[in-house]
Amino acid sequence: MDHYISINDIDNINSWIEEAKELKKNPLKYIELGRNKTLGLLFFNSSLRTRLSTQKAALNLGMNPIVMNVSGDAWGIEFGDGTVMNGNTAEHIKEAAAVVSQYCDIIAVRAFPTLNDKAKDESEQVLMSFKKYASVPIVNMESATGHPLQGLTDAITISEHAKTRKPKVVLSWAPHIKALPHAVANSFTQAMQKMDVEFVITNPECYNLNPEITGKTSIIHNQEEAFKNADFVYVKNWSSYESYGQILNTDPNWMITKEKLGNAKFMHCLPVRRNVIVEDAVLDSDSSIVIQQANNRTFAAQLVLKKILENA
Amino acid sequence: MDHYISINDIDNINSWIEEAKELKKNPLKYIELGRNKTLGLLFFNSSLRTRLSTQKAALNLGMNPIVMNVSGDAWGIEFGDGTVMNGNTAEHIKEAAAVVSQYCDIIAVRAFPTLNDKAKDESEQVLMSFKKYASVPIVNMESATGHPLQGLTDAITISEHAKTRKPKVVLSWAPHIKALPHAVANSFTQAMQKMDVEFVITNPECYNLNPEITGKTSIIHNQEEAFKNADFVYVKNWSSYESYGQILNTDPNWMITKEKLGNAKFMHCLPVRRNVIVEDAVLDSDSSIVIQQANNRTFAAQLVLKKILENA
Amino acid sequence: MDHYISINDIDNINSWIEEAKELKKNPLKYIELGRNKTLGLLFFNSSLRTRLSTQKAALNLGMNPIVMNVSGDAWGIEFGDGTVMNGNTAEHIKEAAAVVSQYCDIIAVRAFPTLNDKAKDESEQVLMSFKKYASVPIVNMESATGHPLQGLTDAITISEHAKTRKPKVVLSWAPHIKALPHAVANSFTQAMQKMDVEFVITNPECYNLNPEITGKTSIIHNQEEAFKNADFVYVKNWSSYESYGQILNTDPNWMITKEKLGNAKFMHCLPVRRNVIVEDAVLDSDSSIVIQQANNRTFAAQLVLKKILENA
Repeated sequence: MDHYISINDIDNINSWIEEAKELKKNPLKYIELGRNKTLGLLFFNSSLRTRLSTQKAALNLGMNPIVMNVSGDAWGIEFGDGTVMNGNTAEHIKEAAAVVSQYCDIIAVRAFPTLNDKAKDESEQVLMSFKKYASVPIVNMESATGHPLQGLTDAITISEHAKTRKPKVVLSWAPHIKALPHAVANSFTQAMQKMDVEFVITNPECYNLNPEITGKTSIIHNQEEAFKNADFVYVKNWSSYESYGQILNTDPNWMITKEKLGNAKFMHCLPVRRNVIVEDAVLDSDSSIVIQQANNRTFAAQLVLKKILENA
Repeated sequence: MDHYISINDIDNINSWIEEAKELKKNPLKYIELGRNKTLGLLFFNSSLRTRLSTQKAALNLGMNPIVMNVSGDAWGIEFGDGTVMNGNTAEHIKEAAAVVSQYCDIIAVRAFPTLNDKAKDESEQVLMSFKKYASVPIVNMESATGHPLQGLTDAITISEHAKTRKPKVVLSWAPHIKALPHAVANSFTQAMQKMDVEFVITNPECYNLNPEITGKTSIIHNQEEAFKNADFVYVKNWSSYESYGQILNTDPNWMITKEKLGNAKFMHCLPVRRNVIVEDAVLDSDSSIVIQQANNRTFAAQLVLKKILENA
Repeated sequence: MDHYISINDIDNINSWIEEAKELKKNPLKYIELGRNKTLGLLFFNSSLRTRLSTQKAALNLGMNPIVMNVSGDAWGIEFGDGTVMNGNTAEHIKEAAAVVSQYCDIIAVRAFPTLNDKAKDESEQVLMSFKKYASVPIVNMESATGHPLQGLTDAITISEHAKTRKPKVVLSWAPHIKALPHAVANSFTQAMQKMDVEFVITNPECYNLNPEITGKTSIIHNQEEAFKNADFVYVKNWSSYESYGQILNTDPNWMITKEKLGNAKFMHCLPVRRNVIVEDAVLDSDSSIVIQQANNRTFAAQLVLKKILENA
C-alpha cells in the first residue's frame, strides 16, 4: 500500500480484519519491521485517541514517532497555488511536505474541515496536498471528509463482538451543541458497505449524509424503527451536509437511551458528550463497547503502518 | 505497588531511600524491565523538572514515554457525575481515563489545585478520578494537595547529605507574590514525619498548613528560633490554608538569607524566585543543594516506576 | 568539541564536510554512540526543520530526544543578574540550565533575537546563559545572531552540488514583509569565508550586514552584477543591521526570478515566502536545491552531536 487516505484503500476488509486480530494477539511480533524508521504525526487539530494510539502502533512496530502540533510548533502553512505570500502564512505546503519527507519515513496528518466551505472541504486540500507534495507515504488521521483509521477500527470491533453471521448495524445521528464534521460517519458508512452486515442509517430528514457516500444504504428517518433488532448501534452527531455545516435540529428525543438500545451494543468513536448524545446508563453498562473500540485504534493503525512498511 | 498517589504509599521510607541510591549508582540496571511498555505523562499544568525527570526515569527503565499537554493537545475533560455535557467540556473522565489506559501501561498525571475551592481541591478530583476510572496504575506528578515524587526526592537528598545520625530539618515558609499550592509542603512534611529526623515547621501564624497533615509536628512562628542548629532548611511559599488560597502576608523579613541559614543546607523544590524567596548569596553558595535535589527527581521517579512495573 | 555555538567552532570545514557526507551514506553506523543518552531540545520559538532534523539526527545516533516548548510547557525564565524576581518570570536561568543538565547529556537551544535591542541580541543572552550555567554541552539551534547548523548544512550542500573546483557563491537579500533576523545570513557568510569559494554578498545599501562578520567579503549593491556567472545563489531576507531591526526597503525588484538566476542553483534555508522572496518558477524548477539542502540538516546536526558525544 502506498498511502492510507480513505476506506477505499482497503482492498479486502475481511482479510484486513483478520490480520488486525492477529496483530492484537501478538503486538510486538513485527517490532523489527519499523526499526530506525520515523513516523511523523502532524496535528492541525486536537487529538487524544489518535495521538496516543498511532504512537503506540508505531512503537509496537519499532518505529520512532515524532509528534508536531503544526499550528503551535511550526509555521503557518500556505496551500494556495501561485499565492503571493505576503500574509499570515510563512511556508508553502510544497516545501513543508517535501521537507518533512526528508526526516520521516511515513507522515500521518490530522486536518479537520472548515464546515463552512464545502468545496474546499471536499477537495481535502490539506491531506491531498501532503499526498501530492510529500515523497513518502501519507496516513489520514482524520481529514475533512474521512476518518479511515476509525472506520477500520469499527469494522474490527464489530467483527469481534458479532454474535450472528450477518449482524444488523445501525448508524444513528444524535444531537450535539456544536457543528461537527461528517468524517467519522462517512468512513463508518464506507466500512460497513464493504462488510457482510445489514446496515442502515437513521437521522432526521435534514441530516442526510453525502448521497455519493451513502449510495444504496437505506436511510430511515424514524429512529425507533431503524433500531428494531439491531445488534450494533453506532452513534455520532454530524452537522447538515446539504445546508453545509449548519445545526438544523438538536431534538433531545434523538439521544440514545438504554430503553431505545435494547439488546444492541453501543458504539461511539469518542469523545462523547454524556447525557447529550447518550445517557449515562448506556455508557456505564455492559452494552457499551466504546472502550474496547478505542483499544482497537492501536491495531488498526498498526496494520496500516505495517502494510505501508512492507510495501516500502 | 498499585499506584503512587501520596507519601502514604511508601511502606518503608528507609528501604526506599536505599533502593533509590542503588538505582542512582547504576541507572540502567533495569533497562529491560519496562521494555516496550509505555508511560503516559498527562500535564494539566506547566512543568520543567517533572516533565524531564519522569521521562528520563522511564527511559532508564526502557519504557517509551508519551507526553500530552491535556489542555492544548486534547479535549476539555468533564469530571462531574451525571453532568449534561452541553458546555465547554467535550470528554468525560470516565472515557478519557479508560481510553488512555488502553495505550499506556502506567499513567502519570499533573493537576494543580484551584486554590479557591477547598473542598474540590481536597477531594483531589482529577487525580482520584484517574485512579477510579483508569485500568492501569496512576502516578501523581503533583496534585492539588501533594507532590509525592518531590517528597521522596527530598528524603533521598537529605539522607545523602546528612552528617549526623538524626539531622534537624526545618521547613520554612517564605514570601511570594502569587498564591501557591500546599502540595510540596504537605508531601515534604509527610516524608519527614516518616524519617528519623528532628523536624520543625516555621511560618507566620496565618500560614499554618492543614493540621491533619502537620499532626504532632511542632510549628514555630519565630523563624530565627526555628533555624537554630538546623542542618537542612527546606524553603517553600504557600498560600493560607485556613483562609484558603489567600495571600495574607508577604513580609520580606521571611526571605532566606545567608546569615539566617548559618551552616544549614538550603533546599527548595524549584522553580524559585531569587531575591524574593531567597537571596542570590544562598543559591550561589555551596550551602545550596537545590541542583543535587533536582537530580534526584530522576531516581525517585525511577524507583516508583520500577516498583509499579515489578508489581504488574 | 565542547559546544557548538557558532561556525567558529568548526576547526576544519573541509574535513567536517567529508565526515558529514560519510554519515549521510551510512546514517546508522554510529547508532551505539549515543545509546541511552538524552538530547534535550529547548524551543523558545517556532521550528519545523530544526525540530525534526535534530530529533532525527539524535535518533540516528541512538539518543533519546526530549522536546520542550519552553514558553508553553514550562515556566517563564529570568536572565537578569541580581533581579528581584517579583514579576512574570518564575525561574532563573541559573537554575533552569543547571537542572536540565541533570536530565540531558546535551542541550540544544533555539532562541531568536528581539530585533529591537541590538546590545542584548549581540550578547546572545539566552544561548550564552545556557552555556554558562549548564554543566553539559550546548548546541545552537538558531540564536539571535547565528544559525550554525544551517551554515554547516549549506556548506555540505554546496560541496555536493559544486561542478567547478572553486564555485561562485552569491548571498542575496530579498524582500519580505516582516523584520527578520540576521542569523542565517551571518552563519552562511562565516561558512563561505572558510570554504574555497568565490563569495560575494548583494543587498540594498541600507541592508549591509554586521561588518565584523562580513569582513573582507565584497558587498555589491547591484544584484544583477553580483549574479554574473554565479554557480549558487543563496537567498535570504534580513532586516537592517545599522538601523537595527528596521524594514527600510521592500523593493520587489530584488525578488529572485528564473531569468535573474540563470544557470545558478537556488538555495534558501526555508521557510520561504513564494512570490515575495522568489517566484514559483524558480522553486518549482530543477535549479532549486532547497529540499536537498533541508535534507542535509539531519547530517549537519548528526555530525555535531557525534563530535560532542565522542568528546564526552
